[in-house]
Amino acid sequence: MATYAKGLEGVIAAETKLSFIDGEKGVLEYIGIPIGELASKSTFEETVFFLWNGRLPKKAELADFTSQIRQRYDLHPAMEAMLTSLPKTAEPMHAVRTLVSALGLHDPKPDAIDLPSVREKALTIFAVVPTILASFHRHRTGQPMVKPDKNLPLAENFLYMLNGKRPTPTMARAFDVCMILHADHGFNNSTFTARCIASTESDIYSAVTGAIGSLRGPLHGGANEGVMKMLNQIPTVADAEKFIVDKLNKKDKIPGFGHRVYKAYDPRAAHLKSLAEQLARDTGNLALFEKSTAIEAVMNREKAAKGIYPNVDFYSATTYHCIGLPLDMFTPAFVIARAGGWSAHVLEQLGNNRLFRPDVDYTGPHAVSYTPIESR
Amino acid sequence: MATYAKGLEGVIAAETKLSFIDGEKGVLEYIGIPIGELASKSTFEETVFFLWNGRLPKKAELADFTSQIRQRYDLHPAMEAMLTSLPKTAEPMHAVRTLVSALGLHDPKPDAIDLPSVREKALTIFAVVPTILASFHRHRTGQPMVKPDKNLPLAENFLYMLNGKRPTPTMARAFDVCMILHADHGFNNSTFTARCIASTESDIYSAVTGAIGSLRGPLHGGANEGVMKMLNQIPTVADAEKFIVDKLNKKDKIPGFGHRVYKAYDPRAAHLKSLAEQLARDTGNLALFEKSTAIEAVMNREKAAKGIYPNVDFYSATTYHCIGLPLDMFTPAFVIARAGGWSAHVLEQLGNNRLFRPDVDYTGPHAVSYTPIESR
Repeated sequence: MATYAKGLEGVIAAETKLSFIDGEKGVLEYIGIPIGELASKSTFEETVFFLWNGRLPKKAELADFTSQIRQRYDLHPAMEAMLTSLPKTAEPMHAVRTLVSALGLHDPKPDAIDLPSVREKALTIFAVVPTILASFHRHRTGQPMVKPDKNLPLAENFLYMLNGKRPTPTMARAFDVCMILHADHGFNNSTFTARCIASTESDIYSAVTGAIGSLRGPLHGGANEGVMKMLNQIPTVADAEKFIVDKLNKKDKIPGFGHRVYKAYDPRAAHLKSLAEQLARDTGNLALFEKSTAIEAVMNREKAAKGIYPNVDFYSATTYHCIGLPLDMFTPAFVIARAGGWSAHVLEQLGNNRLFRPDVDYTGPHAVSYTPIESR
Repeated sequence: MATYAKGLEGVIAAETKLSFIDGEKGVLEYIGIPIGELASKSTFEETVFFLWNGRLPKKAELADFTSQIRQRYDLHPAMEAMLTSLPKTAEPMHAVRTLVSALGLHDPKPDAIDLPSVREKALTIFAVVPTILASFHRHRTGQPMVKPDKNLPLAENFLYMLNGKRPTPTMARAFDVCMILHADHGFNNSTFTARCIASTESDIYSAVTGAIGSLRGPLHGGANEGVMKMLNQIPTVADAEKFIVDKLNKKDKIPGFGHRVYKAYDPRAAHLKSLAEQLARDTGNLALFEKSTAIEAVMNREKAAKGIYPNVDFYSATTYHCIGLPLDMFTPAFVIARAGGWSAHVLEQLGNNRLFRPDVDYTGPHAVSYTPIESR
């Protein structure tokens, strides 16, 4: 009888030099640098350069990389026309999946997979995803679009285009740090999907489009919205204890807790917690933060012994809410971050490619005859 | 040191009751029925019902299933408007990936993953993909669109919408058989991609969109176009021998030969070979068929001992050419077929789901310090 690990849990699918996770110790490193160092010292653009090149940029390189990204902030006019033709009721994740796919229609050589061409296309996707998301949000809410400001970093520019005004420096930095923390994370499902697609020697538009579809799922990137919905269901800090205990008694999962990989505190959650606290104070949302810490205290008492701790989604929710992101833009914000990591993985996959084509354990019948329709 | 199978070769990724491949013996069964029986006795619609339901339909069930498909042939007017706004230079695979993604924008409940809802969405995708492809081809060639004919089976209706006239009965049946042969094939990359995406509990639009992106790749569905390009490079039957020997001497791969799974004759290729011969005779393309058999003879002499035989792509090329498909519609035709199989796999995955989230062997450095930009 064949045995296999369901969901490929514990099965090594490839090599990578990009990110390392020690789930027992709660360690995440990008190319060796602990995520905490990058979160406190780097910027999102620098981190993405690092992932794409395997080393931190020199000053002139970073300036050039940043400039290349900013030159690509604008949407192609035909893309803008498509965007404004989308139904206003559409969900942002379906819109961004469709529009990233559509980028391939306007590329004269969409299928080129030599590494310099893929890097060019990756830059375009990376630069334009925030514009797509912010513009779609303006479109669906009946507000005029806001042109990108090429003097602003990518994450800050997204908030500017979304809200039509510049965020506070605290918000801009918090969102930039969120993007660093979410940029890469081993063979999570969307990254694995992107590499699977790229392994057929298909194009990077296909790979990133597929990855966006994966990230949408409630078991993946969609989880941060689940946390916010839960926080909204709890009237006050005093109600958190009972709410969680009731859910645990019903064997419900608590959104934002536990992770396939981490059996210790998710190192990203630790950083997000302090960001969330500061932002909550600054924006008058302290009650929301206190609800979160109350939930964490209950979960710590009930579940920490089983290795269930807050994951990256838990304090993302408060952080994004305080920054002013609408609920259904939480997962799209994750797309902005992960676009950097997906592209790094596509480049790595194409550098040493082998088609992903696993086996399957067939459990059905054999050698069955075709019964004519009259005899069924 | 960690070991792993590159490309997950030989690694079992899940269970399935859908298709069984014995690569050593050259066997392919759908739910136990040998592919040859289905190709000679079934229809594409019946085969897809079979894959989705695990049993062949009774007469009334097949009539109902067929009617439900035909009711969904038409494109939503907003989809048609999007289609006619696409650049005419776009490649059909990029167009169909974008437009299948866009179906999610017009669905009032795109994210529903209860099985009845997923089946409804699968029916829509399955029914409308041919309309998308044929309409895009008419659009890009400056021809008026042809409304679907709801009296025609799906495969025949595609050829009708594409060319503006009904195919001959031989062509219609040959194309229907091609669709049966291509409907499912274990954990090929696009099917695996669809299941990966669905395993996050994301929607079926996301899963199929990702699968189309995967199928585009030259190492996957894109391979049948490579065969036709090769055939076009060989002036006459007499030139085939030298052409192939020269390629083999240069260690070039020969498109349409060899398969990760089959070390014997691909059972689909056997059926396609006889279809191709008949169509080539009917349509005055016998020289093309003879070039193909001449190539096969050389390859048989040089490579059969190594288990390298024609695969499904090899005689697909001649078949599609004789049916009148333009070269860059070969892979899109594969989408029509595999849409049936992908949906069957998404339904199977959701029926017993576990998130795909493999491990990775990290080969980079550890505990590296962040060097400030001035010191790099």
